[in-house]
Amino acid sequence: NMIKVAVVGGEGIGPEVTDQSHRILKWFSARRGIPVALREAQYGLIPYLATGKVLPDDTAEAMEEADAILWGATGGPETKEVPPAARKVGSLLSLRSKYDLYANLRPIVANPALADSASLKASVLKDVDFIIIRELTSGIYFGEPRGIETLPDGQRRGFNTQQYTTSQIRRVARTAFELARTRKGRVCSVDKANVLETSVLWREEVTALHQAEFSDIELTHLYVDNAAMQIVRAPSQFDVMVTCNIFGDILSDCAAMASGSLGMLPSVSLGPPDRLGRRKALYEPVHGSAPDIAGKGIANPLGSILSVAMMLRLTLNRPDDATLLEKAVDTALAGGARTADIAEPGAKRLSTQEMGDAVLNALDKV
Amino acid sequence: NMIKVAVVGGEGIGPEVTDQSHRILKWFSARRGIPVALREAQYGLIPYLATGKVLPDDTAEAMEEADAILWGATGGPETKEVPPAARKVGSLLSLRSKYDLYANLRPIVANPALADSASLKASVLKDVDFIIIRELTSGIYFGEPRGIETLPDGQRRGFNTQQYTTSQIRRVARTAFELARTRKGRVCSVDKANVLETSVLWREEVTALHQAEFSDIELTHLYVDNAAMQIVRAPSQFDVMVTCNIFGDILSDCAAMASGSLGMLPSVSLGPPDRLGRRKALYEPVHGSAPDIAGKGIANPLGSILSVAMMLRLTLNRPDDATLLEKAVDTALAGGARTADIAEPGAKRLSTQEMGDAVLNALDKV
Ligand SMILES: CC(C)[C@H](C(=O)O)[C@@H](O)C(=O)O
Ligand SMILES: CC(C)[C@H](C(=O)O)[C@@H](O)C(=O)O
Repeated sequence: NMIKVAVVGGEGIGPEVTDQSHRILKWFSARRGIPVALREAQYGLIPYLATGKVLPDDTAEAMEEADAILWGATGGPETKEVPPAARKVGSLLSLRSKYDLYANLRPIVANPALADSASLKASVLKDVDFIIIRELTSGIYFGEPRGIETLPDGQRRGFNTQQYTTSQIRRVARTAFELARTRKGRVCSVDKANVLETSVLWREEVTALHQAEFSDIELTHLYVDNAAMQIVRAPSQFDVMVTCNIFGDILSDCAAMASGSLGMLPSVSLGPPDRLGRRKALYEPVHGSAPDIAGKGIANPLGSILSVAMMLRLTLNRPDDATLLEKAVDTALAGGARTADIAEPGAKRLSTQEMGDAVLNALDKV
Repeated sequence: NMIKVAVVGGEGIGPEVTDQSHRILKWFSARRGIPVALREAQYGLIPYLATGKVLPDDTAEAMEEADAILWGATGGPETKEVPPAARKVGSLLSLRSKYDLYANLRPIVANPALADSASLKASVLKDVDFIIIRELTSGIYFGEPRGIETLPDGQRRGFNTQQYTTSQIRRVARTAFELARTRKGRVCSVDKANVLETSVLWREEVTALHQAEFSDIELTHLYVDNAAMQIVRAPSQFDVMVTCNIFGDILSDCAAMASGSLGMLPSVSLGPPDRLGRRKALYEPVHGSAPDIAGKGIANPLGSILSVAMMLRLTLNRPDDATLLEKAVDTALAGGARTADIAEPGAKRLSTQEMGDAVLNALDKV
């Protein structure tokens, strides 16, 4: 049975970096006999101009039938050329919701080869290897009521609803506990239970699930403000961190810097498991569309390429190939391959394509 | 006319550190002829056991009549010995609300003397000198409706309301713009306007006020996730940052680490200006009650002492004395004075009291 992968570069630097991860995926398909059916599809301003939809029917179909989506990026100045209403249909947020991609996994691993371009000290980055699991389809991103109203005195009032139900909390906490079992066995749940009722419920439900089914895992709790501080102070203390949508958004970008470079970071968003435990998955680099460098061919493709490594592990069930790819990236970096974002001053800067070449060369040599 | 200051050490390490800043304040009163009337008052478990109130009437009166409050800390295990209902009356959140202390100022300044104990590289900490203004009396901290409900299917649902009105946004933005005029003239407003309606309104109102009254100030906007990253990547880029309650809570702790040490950071929460521009003010170190080291006499009093410097500048109208105190702290640090939290391995560690002595010695020598 072929595993179906939709390849959607999207906007900004998305297409450029996805071109490289696409090459990598084809290498694994051809050389390591992985049965994937790759289908490329467009997203964003270009299809909007042609069809009136940022997510045209063909792309929607490709993503619908896919087991995994290799996603590039969306956003940037193109956004302004599409009316907000047309932008909303098929937006990244609506896709997360449509496919119920509730568990967003963002691994944070510091690569010693990049210590020079990091803002944290090498001693602080030592042994950093954790993963943030962000709830992705609920919370204040989707809560109702929401809006801007005009008050009787002529003032305006903006409002949003942060909300979580028992099952929404438990299913993402379950993903965290299960993942911790395959790692160092530690989960840190992050909330603001000293202020927010949503967080009080979050803490209670995470604790209850832990006691009922995962007492072999070490569970700790941190307030979100303290978590932000600890991520900068001593990121190596964490194994698996689980938190709500908005806190995860903020903390994972904070942690991105703790890893040394945003351009290096992969992610996946997982839907609910089917009877065989398979989960629909959207793989994407953590960096966004980076409009300032889009089209220049200088973006770092390693976030997208390492997302393919996550795909090999989680969707394609090829942990050895995942490790192989991660090692090839390490080899390329150890050999001095650097795109502009991770280059020390004066060092040679590879183009996006050349970085793809460097990883493929390393793979060919294995 | 005497300026009234209530001195409230509170719980955890609060009383220890406030003892030292209290000594400093007395030094300025005596030696520099500052007309302050100091009134000490208790807060927390001790008065609760004696009177049934964490904020006894005497303390409430002292804080009510005060122009400025020098606050220590609250929280820690003591919290559990007071029933939640009794804890809520007179809690820090309720005090912020009662005195309408809507503008929370947290300066982030990296001291080169502490580069060794920081997690960021010295090159990244160079020239870091910004101030986060956090809206403190609205947003998701205070929004209604809020609670935990049981749904028809037996599940529970937690909910909170993020909310801002025109005037709540404008008044804190005004504080930011006015402060920027006395500094480098730059304001960065932080929101999540790509997702939240509250943030859309926030951005519109900040922009409108800027155009109407502060076009001499440079205004930029950042999404909160990007702001968290930028604070770790290149904190020296900021001058004044203004944001909502919950984002400010997270970002200021993240930035605390960017400064090198939490124990060093002062803050003030300001109420609305009266006709003479005077604002009720609560000064407190950013660190909390630190229960693990409470009562040991080893906490760093510099956050509280530097809060007195802020008081000299903002309430007592003595900018020269504020600078004098800041210089005395620099002198003490340059001379090697270190409490445990900022000591390099092997360095001599001063007690809380000895650090107070070191600053007083430096003051005496001026
Ligand atoms: C673009 C934005 C809506 C999105 C989010 O906030 O989820 C992005 O920041 C992310 O983290 O994927
Ligand atoms: C203790 C807590 C309620 C408080 C807050 O979240 O405001 C604290 O974290 C702070 O930043 O002053």
